[in-house]
Amino acid sequence: MSKETLAKSIRKIPDFPKPGILYYDITPLFKDPWCLQELSYNLFEMYKDKGISKVVGIESRGFIMGPILATRLNAGFIPIRKPGKLPAETYEESYQKEYGEDTIQIHKDAIDENDVILLHDDLLATGGTMKAACELVKRFKPKKIYVNFIIELTELNGRAIFGEDVEVESVLPL
Amino acid sequence: MSKETLAKSIRKIPDFPKPGILYYDITPLFKDPWCLQELSYNLFEMYKDKGISKVVGIESRGFIMGPILATRLNAGFIPIRKPGKLPAETYEESYQKEYGEDTIQIHKDAIDENDVILLHDDLLATGGTMKAACELVKRFKPKKIYVNFIIELTELNGRAIFGEDVEVESVLPL
Repeated sequence: MSKETLAKSIRKIPDFPKPGILYYDITPLFKDPWCLQELSYNLFEMYKDKGISKVVGIESRGFIMGPILATRLNAGFIPIRKPGKLPAETYEESYQKEYGEDTIQIHKDAIDENDVILLHDDLLATGGTMKAACELVKRFKPKKIYVNFIIELTELNGRAIFGEDVEVESVLPL
Repeated sequence: MSKETLAKSIRKIPDFPKPGILYYDITPLFKDPWCLQELSYNLFEMYKDKGISKVVGIESRGFIMGPILATRLNAGFIPIRKPGKLPAETYEESYQKEYGEDTIQIHKDAIDENDVILLHDDLLATGGTMKAACELVKRFKPKKIYVNFIIELTELNGRAIFGEDVEVESVLPL
């Protein structure tokens, strides 16, 4: 099975969550055991030699492949969540969305300076949420930050938002 | 490493999310690569011979071990989400919470009659959310439904809410 087969399993839904937006639905890919294995294998191959010690996933869709990748890499898994969800002390970062502001949080004891971090989310569009997640992770001064997406909408050029100090890759650039 | 070591990695946080509630925080367990491996191994051992074809995880914390277990079992992963998050046609189920009502949804094409389902969430307290998730899954008339939690707060006797047609198990009954 190839990446083309994975890409074909993505369901495109017009006007979701609002008119004019074409939504890339990856639930059919997670539903198919062979697609899930293939995606997991592809992600592992991309990062197996990077010395990743923690995979950080962004709520909620970054929680699906993030933990799979963490166990394959023998790393820990760290959740970045919406406000009020993480119970211990947190750092937080706010960022602009199309309408208004959003905030994400991470536990203050989640990461240390010896960590090599892989930040994961399902889809790169304009990159606002992941940029805020990078800022959160940078507070811990980890050795290195890798940023990963399953899907990248290349014509939006979201990766331009990230500095040269982070390495951005996607499994399926569309 | 034993289940006792896993149990010790759970962080108990008083008065979260509100006064009088003792919150069981499993993020320290996910953060530790050895705990994550051990938890994943324990879950796999519980279900490896059951013929599970789909693991269904409940948003958001059921999205962490659910997908790991799906890949280990060579099953698909299906998300149950809060309203407005799943983009295709859904079934939904509402249920009473302490204050007011909550609703969860599943895609209408998520499951079929040949499936053997493992429903997963992180914690069994009174069981209201998982009971609603069971009702959602029963609409598809799968061959069998297993229900799994990482932690079970046994003195709340949440498992009494489930009928004898589903098999309920937890990794860490506390």
